Amino acid sequence: MPELRKDPVVGRWVIISTERAKRPTDFKTEPEPAEIPENCPFCEGHEGSTPPEIMAYRHNGTSPNSAGWKIRVVPNKFPALRIEGELERSGEGMFDRMNGVGAHEVIIETPRHLTNLTQLSVREVEDVIWAYHDRCIDLKKDPRFRYMMIFKNKGLAAGASLQHTHSQLIALPVVPKRVSEEMLSGQDYYSFKERCVFCDMVRQELREGTRLIAENPNFVAISPYAPRAPFETWILPKAHNPNFENAQKTEYENLAKILWLTLKKIEVALGNPSYNYMIHTTPFHHEDIPYYHWHLEIMPKLVKFAGFELGAGFYINPTPPEQAAEFLRDAKID
Amino acid sequence: MPELRKDPVVGRWVIISTERAKRPTDFKTEPEPAEIPENCPFCEGHEGSTPPEIMAYRHNGTSPNSAGWKIRVVPNKFPALRIEGELERSGEGMFDRMNGVGAHEVIIETPRHLTNLTQLSVREVEDVIWAYHDRCIDLKKDPRFRYMMIFKNKGLAAGASLQHTHSQLIALPVVPKRVSEEMLSGQDYYSFKERCVFCDMVRQELREGTRLIAENPNFVAISPYAPRAPFETWILPKAHNPNFENAQKTEYENLAKILWLTLKKIEVALGNPSYNYMIHTTPFHHEDIPYYHWHLEIMPKLVKFAGFELGAGFYINPTPPEQAAEFLRDAKID
Repeated sequence: MPELRKDPVVGRWVIISTERAKRPTDFKTEPEPAEIPENCPFCEGHEGSTPPEIMAYRHNGTSPNSAGWKIRVVPNKFPALRIEGELERSGEGMFDRMNGVGAHEVIIETPRHLTNLTQLSVREVEDVIWAYHDRCIDLKKDPRFRYMMIFKNKGLAAGASLQHTHSQLIALPVVPKRVSEEMLSGQDYYSFKERCVFCDMVRQELREGTRLIAENPNFVAISPYAPRAPFETWILPKAHNPNFENAQKTEYENLAKILWLTLKKIEVALGNPSYNYMIHTTPFHHEDIPYYHWHLEIMPKLVKFAGFELGAGFYINPTPPEQAAEFLRDAKID
Repeated sequence: MPELRKDPVVGRWVIISTERAKRPTDFKTEPEPAEIPENCPFCEGHEGSTPPEIMAYRHNGTSPNSAGWKIRVVPNKFPALRIEGELERSGEGMFDRMNGVGAHEVIIETPRHLTNLTQLSVREVEDVIWAYHDRCIDLKKDPRFRYMMIFKNKGLAAGASLQHTHSQLIALPVVPKRVSEEMLSGQDYYSFKERCVFCDMVRQELREGTRLIAENPNFVAISPYAPRAPFETWILPKAHNPNFENAQKTEYENLAKILWLTLKKIEVALGNPSYNYMIHTTPFHHEDIPYYHWHLEIMPKLVKFAGFELGAGFYINPTPPEQAAEFLRDAKID
């Protein structure tokens, strides 16, 4: 019997469609076309192919926009938003608009031509996370911005136009709808229960274990109860923390460990699929709120969202999360 | 300068990214692989390849599940939901679930092996619309159901697994999130303005004309002010009407005309792209509400939604709707 399950955070119902159940091995992943590293603008030695760097972690004695870096952050060459200018909110009859002011940056995760974060060492992944942190601390000083979304598109099917492993960030003058919804629902839950909905989720998943993929002293990786797509995976801090950028050094170390491990399990279990991940954190200038809890969502690209999903905001998922979690839990990493 | 625009219905901001602007001809559409009609379960003569029909428009004297039909409605062979059973809502700790009870049907739009609704005559498209209507009238009698979503996936990229032109419907025991959001926003707008937000939109689009694609006595086809994707197109009734299934015969005739024309313009202008469309109507058992207005949304599949869109519910659209509307308005139909 198929089942309808409700996401306790945003109140979205999904269909866990057992009649269409797919074994993890039923999903086909396309091999990526070969890319010629000579033309890759993200490789060491090609620093002139990107706009000038905003920030870099560099070996001592090297100069900006030259070789000798570990991580490089540059403006997106085709930015969705522009960093200069004022918002100038205005109306057009019944409609509302403002200028497309914002930051759109690329975090180049390694000077080597690697195509997946899992090819980096855990120590290198930690540097990627520090780059996210540092950009967040910097961008929240800009009074025009209300939110910063960090995300990664890995593979052609997930929308990546370059294979060299990289993440992106967009700083926005408005809070994205999905995040506002999570915040509002979190507030509702909190006003009813006087507990954070994410904290409750972490506790229940640790107690039950059926949707648990991995854990370490600071984090859990789970298949959420009502996933939108097969093998959707969330990484959440165990302790309540609304702001991604306000964590301890040890926590970032443990985040690097669990992120690497989870992505590696997905790679091994599902045959190196394309995926997206995104960090959901509290909007700027909301500190210490009790009802929101930052987390990272990973969406392997295994199915297409079609008319029903687009039209309804309602998802049909052929893989029960308990099955996905078991499969990832058992995936053997060499 | 890129622009941020707010959808007045659900309050979603989108980025109209002029820096990444794409001319309509920049979008590549993939040719569909050839399908062998001998194996098509939707073709006339293959009635035994589908589950028994629920309803059909037939030539006089023909029997169910045999040749001689014009439109055939059958259960989906791999249904996302099951028609039998009770909902049995229950909790699992903090989570909520119910049985996956619902209807999942396929509307086969023609006995001939055609692959796009535009290959039908306008008169035949009218029959497709009547089939939507009749199924809606029937399914709303079932007290377990609260909503019926009609949608179409055309082409592989839009999630269609069979090429023979068909639509689908899913009747649900809950109202989909996207529709609840539209209803709630519609209520907010109405309580502030004492007018329907969709009626206001129709009036403004008719007055301005810049986002108008086509119109006839009962309907407009527009590029919405804040589209999620290039060439997103909405068809709305000019007069206020919350319920798709409560229209006049002439209105369905004019709906068939504008739907055919709009899809044909999309086909001609964009090179026969894959697309999804879906009908948003009022949930069952809400009649005559002043704040909701049924409409049909068409999404040509020209771009991939990636991490940012998935994570934020925030869309980056490289094609301003005024440009899309002009291009479709000018598209010449033989």
